[in-house]
Amino acid sequence: MTQSDARPAVQALAFDVFGTVVDWRGSIADEAAAVAASHGVEGDWEAFADAWRAGYAPAMDRVRRGDLPWMSIDALHRLILDSIVERFGLGALDEDERARLNRAWHRLAPWADSVEGLARLKRHFTITTLSNGNFSLLVDLARHGALPWDCVISAELFGHYKPDPETYLGTARLLDVAPTALMLVAAHPSDLRAAKQQGCRTAYVIRKLEFGAGHPLPDYTAGEFDYVADDFLDLAHQLGA
Amino acid sequence: MTQSDARPAVQALAFDVFGTVVDWRGSIADEAAAVAASHGVEGDWEAFADAWRAGYAPAMDRVRRGDLPWMSIDALHRLILDSIVERFGLGALDEDERARLNRAWHRLAPWADSVEGLARLKRHFTITTLSNGNFSLLVDLARHGALPWDCVISAELFGHYKPDPETYLGTARLLDVAPTALMLVAAHPSDLRAAKQQGCRTAYVIRKLEFGAGHPLPDYTAGEFDYVADDFLDLAHQLGA
Repeated sequence: MTQSDARPAVQALAFDVFGTVVDWRGSIADEAAAVAASHGVEGDWEAFADAWRAGYAPAMDRVRRGDLPWMSIDALHRLILDSIVERFGLGALDEDERARLNRAWHRLAPWADSVEGLARLKRHFTITTLSNGNFSLLVDLARHGALPWDCVISAELFGHYKPDPETYLGTARLLDVAPTALMLVAAHPSDLRAAKQQGCRTAYVIRKLEFGAGHPLPDYTAGEFDYVADDFLDLAHQLGA
Repeated sequence: MTQSDARPAVQALAFDVFGTVVDWRGSIADEAAAVAASHGVEGDWEAFADAWRAGYAPAMDRVRRGDLPWMSIDALHRLILDSIVERFGLGALDEDERARLNRAWHRLAPWADSVEGLARLKRHFTITTLSNGNFSLLVDLARHGALPWDCVISAELFGHYKPDPETYLGTARLLDVAPTALMLVAAHPSDLRAAKQQGCRTAYVIRKLEFGAGHPLPDYTAGEFDYVADDFLDLAHQLGA
């Protein structure tokens, strides 16, 4: 941001959630390991979490193309789970165990800086989720992790998944702010680029451990985003919050 | 509630907001008095607040009948404001003053028990708004009054105003709970009756001062609602929260 930036002040921050606010990989691996142990099954549960997550974008694409009707992320997660259990030796999980494991996505742990960072940012800006997770999942995550959102906004409210424009523009409309006064905060350059295309501000938070230590980080260009931060405390510092 | 009640446990509480959580009458009267004083105009500003509020249900009915397109409460409030300013000697208010006064509905003060009562109830239940106020208005009220909602739900999300069934059923759907596991908390029997008709539980909170001291309270029948409470602390006590 330069002194010559003539855009209106940022009023609201919309946060991607999976990977940006919460550590889905560690949380899912822990819950999978626990249910596997109860069946005497050993395995690489981080790889299981990765496989589950890897099914997510293709599943949303099937909804976007109309191959599947609008489905909640809960329902998509369950489709993917059922497609990978055999591969990880968990084919014996019964309906109750599968339903409970699927709900692990409602119990993901925040990154260590998330709660304090959000509390600081909330003093200066309206803070909301903007996630493809369904509304009730996001509410459960907030209660589980004590995330101090001003409100919860889900792709479910728009019947469109990110990166469809309806999600970014719909969030600005619900908050009654211009898209330029809304900043998306995300650990994923592709999400940020789609928001920028709709006129939103962008803050890239680098979550080095989202896909595990040593996993290559996504490419981005210097100056491509308004802010680049190591975590939410760094972002709060940069924003004077 | 009797021991023989076979319905599922209540999981979520949805709160009406104007009059139930916040004192619109006192807050609006204060802001009207301030702008009137700056013009040297004297008047009965509680009567002004009552007149403004009295235009609200008929304006929503015009939307419901299709005489007006879907409009936010902000827009409806402004229509009503413009229709009553002359009567109270405020016809000289310019555009900026009217816009600012209209935003007074975003700055309403909570009742004295609201914040503590909500915090106690939140420990046991998911707590949300369910108000005809537009989404951004409800977010602003929460920030202004430090109301600790888990999420904000507005009639705006459904394109229907209460008491239309879509609002109660839509809230249950977003929270992923059965209507019987959702309890509406409101100071208005008509709202509660409409929620009950859709299978929701009901808690009537008697706000004796909503329309001023001595104003007659609405009629209701003993046993008509699941709970009747004097305020949110009393409701929390009755619910074991």
